[in-house]
Amino acid sequence: MASSLIRGKYLITPTVGGDTAILNEAAVYQEDGIIRAVGSYEALRSQHQPEEHLGGTNYAIIPGLVNSHHHGRGVSTLQMGTCDDCLEMWIIAGWGRRPYDYYLMTLYTALNMMESGTTTVMYNHPQTAAATLTDDVDAVLRGFLDAGMRVAFSSYLRNQNRLVYGDDETFLSGLPPELAGGLRNFLAVSDMSDDDYFDFFEETHRRYNAHPSGKVRVLVSPANVQWASDDFLQRVKEYALRYRTGIHMHLVESIYQKYYGVRTWGRTPVEHLQDLEFLGPELSCAHAVWLTEGDIEILAASRATVCHNASSNLRLKNGIAPVNPMLASGVNVAMGTDSTAINDDDDLLQEMRLVSKLHRQPGIGSPAITSEQVLAMATANAAAPTGFGGEIGVLEPGRRADMVLVRLDDLEDPYLDPDTPPLEAILGRAGKGDVAAVIIDGELLVREGAHQKIDKTDVMSELRRQLSRPLEPETAATRQMARQLAPYVEEFYRGLYPATAMPPVGVPHYSYNSRT
Amino acid sequence: MASSLIRGKYLITPTVGGDTAILNEAAVYQEDGIIRAVGSYEALRSQHQPEEHLGGTNYAIIPGLVNSHHHGRGVSTLQMGTCDDCLEMWIIAGWGRRPYDYYLMTLYTALNMMESGTTTVMYNHPQTAAATLTDDVDAVLRGFLDAGMRVAFSSYLRNQNRLVYGDDETFLSGLPPELAGGLRNFLAVSDMSDDDYFDFFEETHRRYNAHPSGKVRVLVSPANVQWASDDFLQRVKEYALRYRTGIHMHLVESIYQKYYGVRTWGRTPVEHLQDLEFLGPELSCAHAVWLTEGDIEILAASRATVCHNASSNLRLKNGIAPVNPMLASGVNVAMGTDSTAINDDDDLLQEMRLVSKLHRQPGIGSPAITSEQVLAMATANAAAPTGFGGEIGVLEPGRRADMVLVRLDDLEDPYLDPDTPPLEAILGRAGKGDVAAVIIDGELLVREGAHQKIDKTDVMSELRRQLSRPLEPETAATRQMARQLAPYVEEFYRGLYPATAMPPVGVPHYSYNSRT
Repeated sequence: MASSLIRGKYLITPTVGGDTAILNEAAVYQEDGIIRAVGSYEALRSQHQPEEHLGGTNYAIIPGLVNSHHHGRGVSTLQMGTCDDCLEMWIIAGWGRRPYDYYLMTLYTALNMMESGTTTVMYNHPQTAAATLTDDVDAVLRGFLDAGMRVAFSSYLRNQNRLVYGDDETFLSGLPPELAGGLRNFLAVSDMSDDDYFDFFEETHRRYNAHPSGKVRVLVSPANVQWASDDFLQRVKEYALRYRTGIHMHLVESIYQKYYGVRTWGRTPVEHLQDLEFLGPELSCAHAVWLTEGDIEILAASRATVCHNASSNLRLKNGIAPVNPMLASGVNVAMGTDSTAINDDDDLLQEMRLVSKLHRQPGIGSPAITSEQVLAMATANAAAPTGFGGEIGVLEPGRRADMVLVRLDDLEDPYLDPDTPPLEAILGRAGKGDVAAVIIDGELLVREGAHQKIDKTDVMSELRRQLSRPLEPETAATRQMARQLAPYVEEFYRGLYPATAMPPVGVPHYSYNSRT
Repeated sequence: MASSLIRGKYLITPTVGGDTAILNEAAVYQEDGIIRAVGSYEALRSQHQPEEHLGGTNYAIIPGLVNSHHHGRGVSTLQMGTCDDCLEMWIIAGWGRRPYDYYLMTLYTALNMMESGTTTVMYNHPQTAAATLTDDVDAVLRGFLDAGMRVAFSSYLRNQNRLVYGDDETFLSGLPPELAGGLRNFLAVSDMSDDDYFDFFEETHRRYNAHPSGKVRVLVSPANVQWASDDFLQRVKEYALRYRTGIHMHLVESIYQKYYGVRTWGRTPVEHLQDLEFLGPELSCAHAVWLTEGDIEILAASRATVCHNASSNLRLKNGIAPVNPMLASGVNVAMGTDSTAINDDDDLLQEMRLVSKLHRQPGIGSPAITSEQVLAMATANAAAPTGFGGEIGVLEPGRRADMVLVRLDDLEDPYLDPDTPPLEAILGRAGKGDVAAVIIDGELLVREGAHQKIDKTDVMSELRRQLSRPLEPETAATRQMARQLAPYVEEFYRGLYPATAMPPVGVPHYSYNSRT
């Protein structure tokens, strides 16, 4: 649609200055996918002749949501047979998931995310078979683009410690030879040299970063500090600066990852990254659960982004990230679902609600995240490290017309008191079913849950058909290998801290109960 | 329906012994509301000639869910204008909520709860106007009974410390005289002597405990330990034993409530209740967030029940109850929504999911609640203190035929791996929309979200109509009074612990992050 006027009873958006603007009886006028004006509906209606009118007085307009950490698993890990467990065990078990069609799976994931108001995703590709990586990535990006979604793409590399947080050969040498041999073959499939990784990055960047749709940015990604050699991290930083692109990685997702740093360098992972001069505003770190007070200050000073994944951190036994102290220190905190949202459905509105409840520390005057902060985390803050930072996340003239209409009817039915602010009603009560319209680049892509350009039933049918095939013998063999490996992995982590099976915890940021 | 055979691909139920039974290709045969047989579908079909067949191969059968703590607020506090806040401030702000029609509101609440699979509720009536209490309670119980729901009813009394956790007159004497006068008048409306309370209890028990429907139990309820004099608590215990009924109360919901005990008796509230010989299997305590290790041992030994309200505890800044250590110590832990569920909709399936995610302590081998424990918390454990303990909560012959059919289609679409156990799929993915049928006493009351005996649209229309009236002048005045009072209440609590505005926390049961 070349031009449209989108009307709302409310328009709620973070501002560039870090505040939140709430306009009543408001509208957005967009032309060719760019917001030209934001203001009073009456004024905009008199000033513009749009080709299309959208919204109305029973909707709120918010910026398109940005899911800042995702791995593209529309059919969830749980559906694929990997039950929630401690991260380190879950990763091993997950090797036994069935292969899938990257195009179809990505398209399905994107359609699901869009239905709950997500318009942009930070997609982090897992380290899949090196021989087909380029084809797989093409399929993934075709999926997002066919869905109409904006994507900050990266593909991660683990170049060390791929079995446990310790040297692979040392660990393999303690396993039964047959198991070790199977693992060597398994890992070899996705082996990639650092040089090959950067060649792959450059090629992907060249082919997609200036994609005519304007919807793709290509970032560089070391998987996590314990999975990346110092040399690799330093080259990642060089490439990011050279290509003026972002770095996306995992960081201190589990307590074992923090103590990997302490054992290896006598430094926290964040301190180590600081020592390497790796930190900077181009960096976004998923999880960051096990940050010390010092780490938070370092991250704040570096202007790096933390991508909070509340559901995933609970599901995979990693804890609760110290979001309140991060916000207080000025860290740019974003949020995402990590393909592991509480309801297993990538619903970012539900995730926003969980975040808004989870960070409410006990007692009068204790820190509690505000609804305004949660909205910013899912929009402006999450946009910052995507490469679309100045183009999305805030509803203001000149930015891309990515927005969501939230229907107010059910939130207000049978009653909503005038004392309840609209943003509280939305964050407190709105769900996927209240998403009335999703607009990307000015295009209406989802209306009342129905995709306007894609027939989702076809996507589902084809996924059903493909996944109804008998389990592949290679998958069954990998499952068997992962089950054999599991007790050795568990023994490795328990052996690191024999007294407790856990690293020492220290004094928590949040105290939600008390033994004494 | 006099008899029916309810079929499921799975039947999942806690057992009397504390285990979980999962039957494949199973069925329940019920006659006149009583389960006569549970077993293989083929066997039951050959043995019985039911008048009705329900369910099928794409459903799981689970026991009807039991919401173990609820205040009947179907139009939520948020919708009524009270935003989430620290409990003690939220209570004061809540005085300014509009009055409502108890019958309609209860009916609406019950219909909502039933749609997400709840068949029994522990309803705790707030201390409403003494002059109309009997009428209000009649209206409430008519609401539950018209909906067809089972209800453990209690009405609480606060006979002290009604403004803050300290003497009312002392607190009032520090307020501006006009505000103090207004508060005295406000409190007088719901004033009730202990004698009158017990008369009211006896009368309600006489009229409803043997209600012909068999669906009502009447319990006795001191609101909480800081709100009840020792003498009142001791009389509550006497009445509970004399009438062989339960006691339902709030307990250490906030950290201030715990420290009220420490300041007042030099004992935790649980220790104080033990000193009073108040504890016992007839007692159910809502919240119990701020339990010490010693408290947990005392509660376990007493065989009291704890009703966990995970969403409410987060929303009202009370923390996270130590459910894992309670379960490990053998406390009977139930769960409920407290009319303050995460999605503001009393969806107990969603609450089960939150509970299952929230109690997953970091690291390999650390405690993590199991799905079987969560199911028991919402069924058998929650049934125990309702007065229907031996009659519901477990699917076995001789018990009431209260059950839920969960549709499996969406959970398994487009794929569910055979490695994912059915209970993990249900707890991980099922929502209100997957509740295909709700059966109470053998009667099919909800089918595909539609109530079979009540037209919910009429209920909604009438609620809308009543609440569309202009704000009552008395409500506006109460809001104004509550706003004036708020800073004095805040000052009271901050003044108790001037260094931190919070009581000392100690060493937490759960450490979800670390400063150091």
